[in-house]
Amino acid sequence: MSRLETTAADVSEALLVLRGADDPAPASTVVAAAILGYVSEPGDGVLGRIIDALGVEWTAASLIEHRPESEWSASLVEHGAEVAARELVAGLDRWRPRVDHAAFVRTVEQAARVRARLLIPSDAAWPDGLRGLEAHGPRALWVRGRVDALAESPSIALVGARAASHYGEHVTVEAAAGLVDRGFAIVSGGAYGIDGAAHRSALASGGTTVAFLAGGVDRFYPVGHEALLGRVADTGAVVSELPCGAAPTRWRFLQRNRLIAAAADATVVLEAGIRSGSLNTAGHAAALGRPLGAVPGPVTSPASAGCHRLLREFDAVCVTDASQMAELVAARLPAEASQGEGLDGAALGDGITDDGATDDGAILRRVHGALDDLTEAERRVFDALGVRRSRTVSELAERSRLGTGAVLGGLGALEATGLARRVADGWVRRRSA
Amino acid sequence: MSRLETTAADVSEALLVLRGADDPAPASTVVAAAILGYVSEPGDGVLGRIIDALGVEWTAASLIEHRPESEWSASLVEHGAEVAARELVAGLDRWRPRVDHAAFVRTVEQAARVRARLLIPSDAAWPDGLRGLEAHGPRALWVRGRVDALAESPSIALVGARAASHYGEHVTVEAAAGLVDRGFAIVSGGAYGIDGAAHRSALASGGTTVAFLAGGVDRFYPVGHEALLGRVADTGAVVSELPCGAAPTRWRFLQRNRLIAAAADATVVLEAGIRSGSLNTAGHAAALGRPLGAVPGPVTSPASAGCHRLLREFDAVCVTDASQMAELVAARLPAEASQGEGLDGAALGDGITDDGATDDGAILRRVHGALDDLTEAERRVFDALGVRRSRTVSELAERSRLGTGAVLGGLGALEATGLARRVADGWVRRRSA
Repeated sequence: MSRLETTAADVSEALLVLRGADDPAPASTVVAAAILGYVSEPGDGVLGRIIDALGVEWTAASLIEHRPESEWSASLVEHGAEVAARELVAGLDRWRPRVDHAAFVRTVEQAARVRARLLIPSDAAWPDGLRGLEAHGPRALWVRGRVDALAESPSIALVGARAASHYGEHVTVEAAAGLVDRGFAIVSGGAYGIDGAAHRSALASGGTTVAFLAGGVDRFYPVGHEALLGRVADTGAVVSELPCGAAPTRWRFLQRNRLIAAAADATVVLEAGIRSGSLNTAGHAAALGRPLGAVPGPVTSPASAGCHRLLREFDAVCVTDASQMAELVAARLPAEASQGEGLDGAALGDGITDDGATDDGAILRRVHGALDDLTEAERRVFDALGVRRSRTVSELAERSRLGTGAVLGGLGALEATGLARRVADGWVRRRSA
Repeated sequence: MSRLETTAADVSEALLVLRGADDPAPASTVVAAAILGYVSEPGDGVLGRIIDALGVEWTAASLIEHRPESEWSASLVEHGAEVAARELVAGLDRWRPRVDHAAFVRTVEQAARVRARLLIPSDAAWPDGLRGLEAHGPRALWVRGRVDALAESPSIALVGARAASHYGEHVTVEAAAGLVDRGFAIVSGGAYGIDGAAHRSALASGGTTVAFLAGGVDRFYPVGHEALLGRVADTGAVVSELPCGAAPTRWRFLQRNRLIAAAADATVVLEAGIRSGSLNTAGHAAALGRPLGAVPGPVTSPASAGCHRLLREFDAVCVTDASQMAELVAARLPAEASQGEGLDGAALGDGITDDGATDDGAILRRVHGALDDLTEAERRVFDALGVRRSRTVSELAERSRLGTGAVLGGLGALEATGLARRVADGWVRRRSA
């Protein structure tokens, strides 16, 4: 019996709670993913690239069995992952000190005690949007509440500063209610200020809302939002990639922001000062090529200065109400089509329901369908492309973390399937053909 | 003695006041321009095209001598102005009823009485920016105050709604003061609300400010701004293309807006409801390819809804203070260079003064230099091009009012001199090479 199997056996009772009795995934896979999430910090791309090459089970087993570096290296090179091989030593130095069987078992048992659920990337309920994070994606997600809430679409991230003004909270409450009315799930970060107003208003409107935390889901943070997050978990979900017992840190807040941006179909910053962490979420959304909106406010209010910066410098779309925010998501497809070509009525027809109302969900499903056929590299190039701003091949190489050759190959494939378009000084995304 | 010469003789005393004793232009040319301005409504492109083909003196003389249509037509065809020939009859129907020698003499004498000055397009003091209006430009300008104020550069148009909020007026006062401190002349429309705040603040800061009126300069409009406009004329200028005695009409207000947009290096809308006339000024600025800024405000304030629409739909730049508004003008060149190519340090060097500060004037002078070499058609195509938004050949044909062939020819010439660039779905402006 391998040490990975032993560990799985040690937490088998907890796994029943976390995964259910009819778990289609082998316990060793689930435990391997949880172990890798446990030993690493969020967003660790080195670990991601190693997993891409060698799989979660091999990687987790090798860690807990203290496999020598030479064997890791040989396997990585054998699988063509030379870059990961070069990064390996620094990675092992980060992960090995955290390998602690007893502590890991405790964290899993604690998760079961709070009746959390454990999601891994191969699960059907894994939020599709997170795949855009590639090697920097989470290894596992700990979820309190309704697992299905996570994958609800269309969804929109409503984020902003903790130090919100009355104006910012008012606009957020109106926006969340209007978006719920339009069938949107509301994603946010559970913080004071704008985040809290977004969750609260979504709940009050009977909508689904999802909160991503920067620490374990066994302890709701911030403390003042314990009751609110409990209510979020009652009908929606409270989610974290960090194991139970993990405390939030500055790094974890920043990385938590990437999950918010990636999980939602679009991100809107409702009110943010010039140094608000929500600008970091906006940056992630932009980097992922997701639609980004910003709500303007008085130029005399420092609480809106960050939103104005997003409008000026980051090509954010000015959105003033729920209907314009909904358009942001619906436009994920048509906005690309409209660049110089006008809206294509036939293509849009797919998103029109019988009563003539636009079915945002149908439009989004069509985008996702086209993207499902992409290879990993094509997908990374697609994610690196901007919707409005063109990027050069070298910019795309940097963003996708692929070589120039791979980027050019990916662009060729994307152009052929109508997902990318060459413009004078680079490439932009295009609607699916 | 022709009737044009007779008319010039009849107003010779007034001309001494309006043009000075050492007028380099022949009295017949000056009077012809004034007559054509008198008989036509602002922005009459048919008249503009006829003047382009046949000159002001021939046109004015032919009007007052009631030359038969057949002779007009023959001359136009002879000069290759077939389009103007087709539009001629409708034009003559508009202008002929207004030919009235006695009334014209009265208007000129009234202008002299209020000590106005009369500018014609061939004058050195004629504002260069107005040439962008091409056939739709004014025939003459009546100016009270300092003629030189009109051509001061850099200049910026600060416009907005009459129904301004305290917020809008506050932002305008701060912006105008900050721009005056940076050496800008402030152009506006003399109206209540934002316009008035802009003029007042510019005066209070000791700056130059120019007000364009929609009626004759002998009667300052609105009446409540009589004193303010008097003070504008003391150090700056109050200007109109309408002759003295002409009352403002809705059409004249809309056409006045084109003069504001064309005379200034950039236009900023500081506060505007969704139906504010200042959005018309913004539209003119955009059509002329001039930088357009909009100041955001609370989304809960209908007084800012027009500004938000400009940000969302018209590619306006979000500007929150005087420094960002000044950047708008300074960026008129670099913004084009930065499209995918990054800023070109060497090219920008031209605009850097010895102490390292940016000399906006130098940058602008460089743009104007390159444009001086263009033919009329190239210039019209250039004006029709957008800085950020690409336009197709047929859009350019519509905007420039040129045929497709002429547009293609113009684009070829502009591309060769580095002033236009082909992108995937059309053409955009480019910095001069």
